[in-house]
Formats: sequence, structure tokens, C-alpha cells
Amino acid sequence: MSSTKTSSHVNSTFITDNFLLQNKFAEDLYHYYAASQPIIDYHNHLPPAEILADHQFENLTQVWLKGDHYKWRAMRALGIDERFITGDATDEEKFLAWAKTVPHTLRNPLYHWTHLELKRYFDIDELLNEETGPAIYKEVNRKLQTPEYSVHGLLKKMNVETVCTTEDPLDSLEFHKAFDAKKAGLKMSTAFRPDKAILVEADTYNAYLDDLADVSGVPIDAYEDLKEALRKRIEYFNENGCTLCDHGLNYVSWEPASEEEVKQLFKKRRGGAQLTHLEAEQFKTAILVFLGEAYHEFGWVQQFHLGALRNNNKRMLSQLGPDTGWDSIGDYKQAEGLSNFLNALDSKDKLAKTIIYNLNPADNEIFATMIGNFNDGSVRGKVQWGSGWWFLDQKDGMEKQLNALSNMGLVSCFIGMLTDSRSFLSFPRHEYFRRILCNLLGKEMAAGEIPKDMNLVGEMVANISYHNAKNYFNF
Amino acid sequence: MSSTKTSSHVNSTFITDNFLLQNKFAEDLYHYYAASQPIIDYHNHLPPAEILADHQFENLTQVWLKGDHYKWRAMRALGIDERFITGDATDEEKFLAWAKTVPHTLRNPLYHWTHLELKRYFDIDELLNEETGPAIYKEVNRKLQTPEYSVHGLLKKMNVETVCTTEDPLDSLEFHKAFDAKKAGLKMSTAFRPDKAILVEADTYNAYLDDLADVSGVPIDAYEDLKEALRKRIEYFNENGCTLCDHGLNYVSWEPASEEEVKQLFKKRRGGAQLTHLEAEQFKTAILVFLGEAYHEFGWVQQFHLGALRNNNKRMLSQLGPDTGWDSIGDYKQAEGLSNFLNALDSKDKLAKTIIYNLNPADNEIFATMIGNFNDGSVRGKVQWGSGWWFLDQKDGMEKQLNALSNMGLVSCFIGMLTDSRSFLSFPRHEYFRRILCNLLGKEMAAGEIPKDMNLVGEMVANISYHNAKNYFNF
Amino acid sequence: MSSTKTSSHVNSTFITDNFLLQNKFAEDLYHYYAASQPIIDYHNHLPPAEILADHQFENLTQVWLKGDHYKWRAMRALGIDERFITGDATDEEKFLAWAKTVPHTLRNPLYHWTHLELKRYFDIDELLNEETGPAIYKEVNRKLQTPEYSVHGLLKKMNVETVCTTEDPLDSLEFHKAFDAKKAGLKMSTAFRPDKAILVEADTYNAYLDDLADVSGVPIDAYEDLKEALRKRIEYFNENGCTLCDHGLNYVSWEPASEEEVKQLFKKRRGGAQLTHLEAEQFKTAILVFLGEAYHEFGWVQQFHLGALRNNNKRMLSQLGPDTGWDSIGDYKQAEGLSNFLNALDSKDKLAKTIIYNLNPADNEIFATMIGNFNDGSVRGKVQWGSGWWFLDQKDGMEKQLNALSNMGLVSCFIGMLTDSRSFLSFPRHEYFRRILCNLLGKEMAAGEIPKDMNLVGEMVANISYHNAKNYFNF
Repeated sequence: MSSTKTSSHVNSTFITDNFLLQNKFAEDLYHYYAASQPIIDYHNHLPPAEILADHQFENLTQVWLKGDHYKWRAMRALGIDERFITGDATDEEKFLAWAKTVPHTLRNPLYHWTHLELKRYFDIDELLNEETGPAIYKEVNRKLQTPEYSVHGLLKKMNVETVCTTEDPLDSLEFHKAFDAKKAGLKMSTAFRPDKAILVEADTYNAYLDDLADVSGVPIDAYEDLKEALRKRIEYFNENGCTLCDHGLNYVSWEPASEEEVKQLFKKRRGGAQLTHLEAEQFKTAILVFLGEAYHEFGWVQQFHLGALRNNNKRMLSQLGPDTGWDSIGDYKQAEGLSNFLNALDSKDKLAKTIIYNLNPADNEIFATMIGNFNDGSVRGKVQWGSGWWFLDQKDGMEKQLNALSNMGLVSCFIGMLTDSRSFLSFPRHEYFRRILCNLLGKEMAAGEIPKDMNLVGEMVANISYHNAKNYFNF
Repeated sequence: MSSTKTSSHVNSTFITDNFLLQNKFAEDLYHYYAASQPIIDYHNHLPPAEILADHQFENLTQVWLKGDHYKWRAMRALGIDERFITGDATDEEKFLAWAKTVPHTLRNPLYHWTHLELKRYFDIDELLNEETGPAIYKEVNRKLQTPEYSVHGLLKKMNVETVCTTEDPLDSLEFHKAFDAKKAGLKMSTAFRPDKAILVEADTYNAYLDDLADVSGVPIDAYEDLKEALRKRIEYFNENGCTLCDHGLNYVSWEPASEEEVKQLFKKRRGGAQLTHLEAEQFKTAILVFLGEAYHEFGWVQQFHLGALRNNNKRMLSQLGPDTGWDSIGDYKQAEGLSNFLNALDSKDKLAKTIIYNLNPADNEIFATMIGNFNDGSVRGKVQWGSGWWFLDQKDGMEKQLNALSNMGLVSCFIGMLTDSRSFLSFPRHEYFRRILCNLLGKEMAAGEIPKDMNLVGEMVANISYHNAKNYFNF
Repeated sequence: MSSTKTSSHVNSTFITDNFLLQNKFAEDLYHYYAASQPIIDYHNHLPPAEILADHQFENLTQVWLKGDHYKWRAMRALGIDERFITGDATDEEKFLAWAKTVPHTLRNPLYHWTHLELKRYFDIDELLNEETGPAIYKEVNRKLQTPEYSVHGLLKKMNVETVCTTEDPLDSLEFHKAFDAKKAGLKMSTAFRPDKAILVEADTYNAYLDDLADVSGVPIDAYEDLKEALRKRIEYFNENGCTLCDHGLNYVSWEPASEEEVKQLFKKRRGGAQLTHLEAEQFKTAILVFLGEAYHEFGWVQQFHLGALRNNNKRMLSQLGPDTGWDSIGDYKQAEGLSNFLNALDSKDKLAKTIIYNLNPADNEIFATMIGNFNDGSVRGKVQWGSGWWFLDQKDGMEKQLNALSNMGLVSCFIGMLTDSRSFLSFPRHEYFRRILCNLLGKEMAAGEIPKDMNLVGEMVANISYHNAKNYFNF
């Protein structure tokens, strides 16, 4: 079809050197101050085993489509059968189904990501579609067999200095320990994510506690035991280089109860009974404050990802499990709970460095201003508002976050981008973010809204791209 | 005044061929891919009797101001006396009051709509104001007397292929049946809107049920009777070509109760007692699930308009009734109820094609992501997020909807524009929408954010303007 | 450093004549229709004593940093020690700490405000930073000693016609009375702000009532006494030229109770007991309706500032008191309560002219549409949505307010800008607002979205800049 012909014709110019950079200021900011900065990816879900093993991927479907629920949702919206998404179709069939989907993702970040990733990792300039798919699949698969395209090769290509994966308290960190010992020229850290010890309503809660008891060596009968077990795991993670934690919650609960009450609640739940909504809130309030104090003691950074509405489609949840593309954005009340929680820690002078992320952009300004409430002058940008998360990890979402943060705080102190990804091919998102940042600033320089001073603005670009995170995390 | 002189001077150029199209890409997209597409207006409130009768309007006030609460609100904001709005002033006085208001609506969509409608229907280039009003009134009224300006003439001018009006279950559909028999070269369908059978708190609820019993021939004593009566009306609507329904709700209730409990609730209300808030929620939850299953069975499309805060001004409500310009935007919690409701239907594999509309733009991203939770691969774009509704039906509102939909879903699958209007002069809003869409895309082509591939982008434009709706509704 | 060199180099061009004006239309609108309009600053927190005394400030820290919690928050975010913010550092040390902070506020409104204020009041073109700070401090301090830079001089420089400060009902208005007698060519009015008589949960509530009893001469034992005391103070304020009031609330409560119930609630609280949440809501509902009726009777304008989440940081609250930079944005439900309250007054035909302000921009459209519910044709723009408040008082925030207001109401009737400031150096914010307004309109003229008719658009600019407020307040 002529449509595809024309596409082929324009392929060579889509991901240009100045992609997303709309004037000379933006171009110079990006090329001179951002492009060469290393990547600190301080929050992601990469598989440590594959990093340790320097895994070599079999084909493009394995490295690109497996586990990528962003792509899956797009395919489902287009009406593609689940067989070609998570079903028993071959890897090639699945890839071709994706290739066919790509032109229909126009204006979605997937369209940019797809071509940026094909270009940066595999030097492919063609637009991916049904027609170009087969040849691209062949070419990429050939490259994936070469050492240059092992996991380390992929990370090196993107100038990745540090990755920080996310692990449950049960994790042995064996891969991290072994990798650390290899001195491979890449730092792999971990973030402690104890959601399962907090989400007390889950049917699997007591089974999880049994596992936690095993791993920690602390029999968990009473609330004190839970705290001891968690503390032991924090110590263990800390000993193995962990300096971050992460929490995924609808919202931060705030229903204070006495220690005695919490003990009773825990006893009730541990005995197999369910808690009421209020009781669960009380328990979560208590355990989060306990954890927050511990993080502060160990000098960690605590992260909170708030506002997702998860597992909406129970039919597919039962078939595919969580994190397979059936989540959306919630409208929970966020401000008071979060404020009370941070204040409780701050009041005891036990507030760790903190990063809060919101999923609902209607909460942007709540988060942008919340972080200004607990800066105590001890650390530059002590409380941070995280970069556009998940559904907000796209040009509009990033621009809105950068603008709200700028208008209501100091973007100059911002620690910038992270991938939050499960894929080794997602690192060009740092480039994407940096281009968007430089373009915003370049447009304002041209418009006279900020001074036409490349040193002043460029230094801010370099800080947000790299140095602020470097200093904040002490990586 | 010189002000008006200058206005006259610029009149001839306000609604230009390239109105809202800011570069050559945008112009070409609009003129080559959008402009000639027919209109499927799949949701509006046009009066079927006037369509059947091919009504000829007496004057511009009758066709343009009567029932248009958008204009009324603007006039009230300007401090115009109600006499000239809904009172006993003459039609000419009312028109002149509106003409005087128009210059003060600058930046409101009314300013664009007004001049677009004068231009497209009546070939008037002048800007409407106090000075030009009298002559314009005369000229339009003259034209309105000619056959070219009958209802069918007006629709034909705008290339309207299908209109879908909105009727209560009590409606006999006599006008639709008679019109269908005329084979008039225009499709007039209907959407089933059973709000009055759902809003159980209304003082008029039992009176409404009496009417429903009469029309359906099912005496309504028990909950089972209500369901049978509604089902009979759904069958009746279905037999008469209906394939859509619509619901106007603050939010989708979700308080599951047993069938037995719902029966008791209904009995209580039918007996004349009021339900508690919780009981009303339980009833609504049940009846909505019942209806949803029925819609699925008949292969209909279900629509939900959520988030209005209606009838705020009780004084004027009692004088003028509902839908007279006293409504605004609510801040209801939307996500969990809507998710649970859609999931309940999906879990039984009884989720019909669904369109959800939000009135509060703070909910945009909730809706944009909610639709991705229930695509089952059976239909392209099965769950849709409707175009900017009511207060959001303007350039900013449409752009925000298009952007959020693009960033969090596939805009390529979007079924596009509808008027939701009570007026036969509102159809240029489709043109308005298409220009806005083409302009967004054209700007991104120029900026290199999407490929400069007219076939690729143009095909998407044509699909969103017409083909997607055509395929989705099987009109 | 070369960075600073370059900064110096570009200094002379940052605040240009056409700052923020991006095309010729915008420039002409601003220079011909906006720039020369006087300033009516109808809501601020200026100290009346200093206006009366025509105070001469000792140094730049005194006039610029003292009490400015916007600057304090920025300094804290950067990690600056509290000693240099509110502590015992010298004024010069504090200024230099601020000077060092300024380059890090890039993209925050502080960056624009800082340089606009230095330019307009002190004719300083240099960018403020660590290097330029000392010389600027010296130069400004020198100027501040001259009569031209007294409080009246500062206001005269900015063409201020009217300022309206904010006082508690306890205030004697002695400064206002004395100033009024001086006939100083400046109007200083006041706004009645009875928050402390409403916020019944405060520990200090009864102590406040004791003071109110003293000042009003009405012993306050019963609810009737409270109403009488407040009414006496309203009368007193009214006699002294007051025509406005203001309320700072999380949200407008709406829990109607009988007069008898409210009397009992008040008795309970006056006796020293705390009210339940519901009881407090009932009390606030009643007292607000009482006050609203009184304001209407006196022909005042009532203002409501809604949605702040105050005093988040209890540790710093106890050290520094309220309004010292520890507040952020709340996510309260606003729509129904506000609607019911306004309707209650309107239903009795006792709704005063009303201005509502929101702090959470997610509520923008709720407020933009709420104001359209209670226009009764008696006054042009009777119910107003206030200009971007506090965290929203910046370019993005103003543009969003102007756009939502335009799209959902009539921006032509808008009463425009106010500073809400505690500083005599904040008046260039009116210029800032006007430039932003003219730029929005100029861009739309160039794009053909509004007519290229300077008279039509310019008249709207002049109205929003000055005449609408002049007419609305009868100042």
C-alpha cells in the first residue's frame, strides 16, 4: 500500500538527532549538558538473575514484549486476541501482532519508545509496522545473539552507571551479592518493598507472615515479632548495600491507635480473622510509622507510590495474575493522610529522605506542595516528588510534573528520571525525559521567560539528569 | 463606535477556510481527510417530532435560542434580565439581547459556535453584536422560510447521515417509526434512557413506575415486575431499531446486596417510604447490573454520563424546571464504583460495548485508563471514553480529552464526536472537533513528534471522524 | 565563574519592555490597554499601621524577606539552615542567603517576581545571585532611605489606587480611620475576616469569644449572643467603610440543623466541651448562613478561600506559628457544600456578591461552573471565581484559571488580579497578570481564534485590568 511506502520513505528521519528539541537552545542544552550524563536508574523492576548471568536474549519478543503490560493493553484495545499477547502463539506471531499494532499507537508513548528503542539499541531507522515487522524481527534477533547485545551490553550501550531493583523482604539478595562480588563496572542495588507485610487484608497475609518468619528466623506470633522480623530483614538488606525502600499503596493510611490496640488487631488477624476497614487502617498506620522510623535510623531513602487502582478485571487477574495490564488510576483522598504520616515522623526528627509519587495527575499539585512542608534545611531537596509514574510516564505527564514542580517548588533540586521498568530496553526513557526537559527550557529561553544563559540553565539540566540523584542517593 | 466599525471590517475573515488550522499539515489533514466525511451524531437530544415533520422554524430565536441553556447562562452572567432569556420578551427582543451578549463571550466556545453556525448554515460572515444583530436577524429569518432551511435541509447542509436521539422507556417511538417508514435518506435512531426508573430517591418515583406499568402492560408491585417492565421496553426499543442506551448519573453506585434484599428495598420504596442513602445505592447497583446484562444480551452499546451536579439553584429550578442552565460540575468519587460495575458484567462475560463520559476534567485520566481494563480483544475499542461532554465540549476540553486518551490508550480507535445538542444548528461542532483534531496532529507532524506521513495520519483522522463510529455502532 | 559572567552579560535584557509578550498583538494590548490602568488591590494582607505611618524600611531584608514564606520555602528546599531564614542571622546574612537561592528558583514565580520587583521599584537590571547580591543590597538600601521609597512612594510608583487589607472582627480599625482622615490620595479599605469565630474546633475558641465579647460589648453566653456580637462588629466595620469580607476554610460545610440544635451545640462548646465532627459542621453551616445573610443586608462582597491544608509541620508550627511556610494544597470535596450554601442564601434572595477562590487546581472547573449557577441578572458577574490564589498565583496557574473561566463562563466579566500579599513590593504582580492576559489574547488573535480587532479585545483587557473591579466593588 502507498501508505506503507510513504512510511518507509520517512523512516530515516523520525528519530533524528534533534528529536523533540524544537529550537537551538533546546538542542544545545541537550547535546552539551544532558546527552553524555550517565544513567542512575534508581527505581526499576529488572530481574537481578538476568543481570548477574549477563543474560543473552533469544529473540526480540523475549526481551521486548514479555512482561510489558503497556504493549499488551494497547494490543487489547485494538481488538487483538489474547493468544497473540500472553497466549500460546509463537514468539514470532506475537511480535508480528505487536508490529501490526504499532501504527495504531500514534500519539501514545509506545510509538516514541518503540522507535527510540529500535534506533538506540539496534540502529534501526524504519518505522515498525505489519510490513516492516518480519525483516526487523530477523535483524534484531541476529544482533541479539552477539555478545554486544547481552544484558551488560545493552546497559553499557545506554551508559547505565547504577540500577536499583525492587525486592520483597523475603528475598535472599543472592543475585545482588554475587553480582557485587563480580565488580562488573555496574552498580546493582536493591530497594526493600514490604507491601505484603503491610496489606493486611490480603487472603495470603498469614501465609506471607509464615514465610517471613522462616526467612528472618523470628517466629511471628505477636505484633512485636512482626516488627522484629521486619527489622532483621531491613538490617539484612542494609548489610547488603540497600539504601532505599519502596511502598505501593492506594494511599497512606492515617488512623492512629495505641500500641496496645495494634497488638490486639494483629493478634486477631494472625489468628485468621479479617479486620474491619478501620482496623486495617489502624494497623497500616502503625506499621508504616514503625518502618519509617527504621528507614530513618539506617539512613535510607523511602519511596511511596500512591494512587493506583489495581486488578480491576478479576476474570483476567485469575488467569494471568497481577501486573498484566488490568490496572488504572484511582481517585483516593491523599493529602491529609500523607501529611499526618510525614509529620508524625518529622515530629520525632525521624523523617528519612522521602520520594512520593502520584498516579492520578489531579493530585499533582497536592504532591508538588506537600514536599515543601517537611524540608528542614538538612538536605538539598530532602522530600522529593517523583517523576511522572506509570500512566504519567509520557511527554504530557512529564511536562505537567516538571511544570507543577517548578511552579510550586524548586525543579533545580529535582532528582529526575527513573524507568520503573521490567525491560532492559527501556533505558532510552532517560534520553526521552532529558529531551523533554531541555525542550521546555529551550522554549522558555527563546521566549525570554528564563535568561538566555547556557551555563545557568545547562548546569540545572546536568543536575537534574544526573548529579542531583548522584548526591541524593550517595550511589 | 469605532470598535464596531473595526469589527465589521474584520468580519469577512474570522471563519476562514483554515480556521483553527495552524499549519499546512493541519490544513491538508482537515481538507483531504476530514471535511468530506459524513456525520454520525450518535448522541443528541433533538426532538424527533420536528425531524419527522421536517419542521420549518419561524425565526432565529426559535431555532437557536430556545432551549439553549449554554447561551442563557452567558446572558445571566452578563447581568441580563431573565425576561430576555426565558421570559415574556418577544423573540426579536430575545435575539437582540443575545446579539448584545456575543462580543462578551470572547474565548467561550459560544463565540466560535455562533459564528461558525451563522457562516455554515446562513453564509453570514459578519460578527454578531448589538449593531449587526437586527440585520442578521432579518436575513436569517428570511432564509428560514425557504425549503432549503427546513429541518431536513439543515441536516443535509451538514452532511448528516445518522442522528440518534434520546428517549425515556415510556416513549412510544411513534416519530421514529413513522420517520423510518418515510425512507428519507437520513437515519434517525434512538437511545434508551431509563434514568427515571433508577433514581429511586425522586419524589416522583412511584408515579413514574405507574406510568411505566401502563406503557409496558406489566403491573409493577415487586422488583421482579420492574425488571420485567423494563425488559419489555428494551425489547420494544430493540424491535424499533434501538441499539444504544444512555444513563445520566452522579456516579456509578456500587453497593452489592442480595436479590432478596433488593426486593425488600423495592417493596419499601414502592410502598411510599424513602430509602436510606445506603439502601438507594444498593437498589441502583442492582438495577444497573440488571440493565447492563440486558443491553449485552441485545447487543447494544451502553453509555454513562457521570459527574454532573444538577439543579443547584432551587429557586430557578422551581420556576423553569431542569436543564435550564443551573447545573455545574461535581466532585464525586468515580473510579472504584465504575470499576466494580464493569467488572461485575465482565466477570459473567456480559459486558456490552460501553462508552463512559466524565464531566469533571479532573477525572479525565481515571476514565482514560479505566477503559483499558475491560478490552477483551473481541472488538476494536470495545470500551470507549466519550468526547468532551457539556462544559468540556470546547477546544481546551477536547484537546485534553484527546491528549489523555492518546497518552493512556489508543486514540486511533476513538469513535469521536457527538453533539449532545437540542438544536439543529449544532452540527458544525463536528467540523469544530475535526479541525481541532487535525490541528493537534498537524502541529505534531511539523514538530517531528509523529511521522510526516499524510497517509498514516490522514487515515487516523478519517477513522476518528467517521469510520470508527460507523463500525462501532453498525449504523 | 563564567556562569555568573554570562549572567551579568544578559542581565540588561531579562525584564524587557515586552517581557512575556510573544507577539505584536500581545504587546499592543498590554502597552495600549493594560499598562496605564491603576491598581485596585482588593484583597491583601498589608499592615495598615505601616501604611498610616508611611513607613520607611530599614533595608531590603525588612521590606522583602520578612514574612515572605514563599521565599522561605524555597530556601528550605535548597537545604539552607533556618538560621538564615527566620533565625538570628543578621539581615544582611539573610539577604545573601536569599541571593544565593535565587538562581535555583528558575521556573518558579519567585524568579520572575524577584527580577520584576528589583526592576520596577529599584531600576535594577542585574540578575540576583550570590555574586551580585552584596552590591544590590547596598544600592537598594541606599534608595530605601529616601522619601521616594516610603510606603506611599512604593505604592505610588505602582499606580495603586486602592488597597483592601484583611482584619479580624476584633480589630479597632484605628489605622484605617486615621488614614482615611488623612486624605492621602490612596484608598485603604478593609475586609472583615471572622475565621476565628467560625473555627469552633480550635483550642483557643472560647478565649477568642471572650475577646469578641469585650470588643463588641456583648457578653457571649448563648448562640444568640455570638450572632449579636458579630453583627455589631459587621456594623462597626461597615460604618468604617468596609464593604468586603473574607473566609479561609478547608471547604464550605453543609450540615443543616435546627436553630435549637445549633444553640445547644454552641452551649456545649462554650461550656468547654469539644464538638464531634458532625456537630462542628452543623455549627459552621449555621454561622456561615447567618453571616452570609448579614453581608447581603449590608451590600458587601463576600469572599471564600477554600482548599488549603494548613500547618502540616507541627514541629515548625510550634516554633514559628502559622503562615510561615508549612501549608500545602488539600483535596477536600468542594462542590456540594458550596452549592448548598450559595443556594440557601439565594433561595431567600439574600445572596451577596460572592467571590470564590480554590487552592487545588483540580477544582478549577468545579469553581468555574459553580459561579454560573447563581447569576440572577441583577449584577454583571455577580458570582466571581477569583484569580489564581497562593500556589496558583503564577503563570501556569493564572493561565489555567483564565482558560477555564473563559471556556465555562465569561472572562469578559472577570474582576481580575489581587496580590493577597503581605509585602509592599508585590504590586508588580498586577503587571505580571496583565502581561499574561495580553499574551494569551495576543496569541489567539495571531492564530485567528479571536478577531484581530484591537478595540474589541483591548476593551476586554482594560475591563479585566481595572474597570470590572472598579464597578464591582464600587471603590
